[in-house]
Amino acid sequence: MKITTLAETEKSKVNVDGAVNVYKQVPLSGNDGVPLFSFRVFTIEPGGHSPYHSHPFEHLAYIIEGQGVAINEEGEEKELKQGNFVLIMPDEKHQFRNTSQSGPLMFICAVPKEYE
Amino acid sequence: MKITTLAETEKSKVNVDGAVNVYKQVPLSGNDGVPLFSFRVFTIEPGGHSPYHSHPFEHLAYIIEGQGVAINEEGEEKELKQGNFVLIMPDEKHQFRNTSQSGPLMFICAVPKEYE
Repeated sequence: MKITTLAETEKSKVNVDGAVNVYKQVPLSGNDGVPLFSFRVFTIEPGGHSPYHSHPFEHLAYIIEGQGVAINEEGEEKELKQGNFVLIMPDEKHQFRNTSQSGPLMFICAVPKEYE
Repeated sequence: MKITTLAETEKSKVNVDGAVNVYKQVPLSGNDGVPLFSFRVFTIEPGGHSPYHSHPFEHLAYIIEGQGVAINEEGEEKELKQGNFVLIMPDEKHQFRNTSQSGPLMFICAVPKEYE
């Protein structure tokens, strides 16, 4: 049994094309021996966003804190707030944007461990 | 893309041996076409607990709200609070207990979809 917190988990800036002011942590990861899937947490600072992209694996997400939008395949903005659960299917184009002027948008983003 | 909340998700009482005052919701499930794993949420009311058991699949958990303990394989109590991430490995004996007198213990408990 592992019990941990974000405060105990290494945090690094995401340096990929299209990512702005995004930070990543992996509290439950392949390093812990997870058999199938991992829990990552992304923090997007005000004005920031993830890339608008698709990939061959899914996201199961939970909004821990903050306000934002998810952009869907059609380019539509869908409101996100604390307590939302979000499913992005494999190959579905998507983006997460922080729409707050002041606070971070933080969410769990679980993926198959090969893609953590 | 699916976006949902617990308020929109069916809630049912868990009726298995050893479960006391436990309620289950599955906001992201096989019904949504999740490829690999599902997000379930358990709410344990004050005085309640999950079974002290093991099974051949893992849990990746996140404490949304409340206070409690996780009992590990050795029978030791490990404190749980909002913001904790918990990994239970396959075949690892465990139990979740609400130790509050007043509020619920709520947590995401992700599992391979075959076991949702």
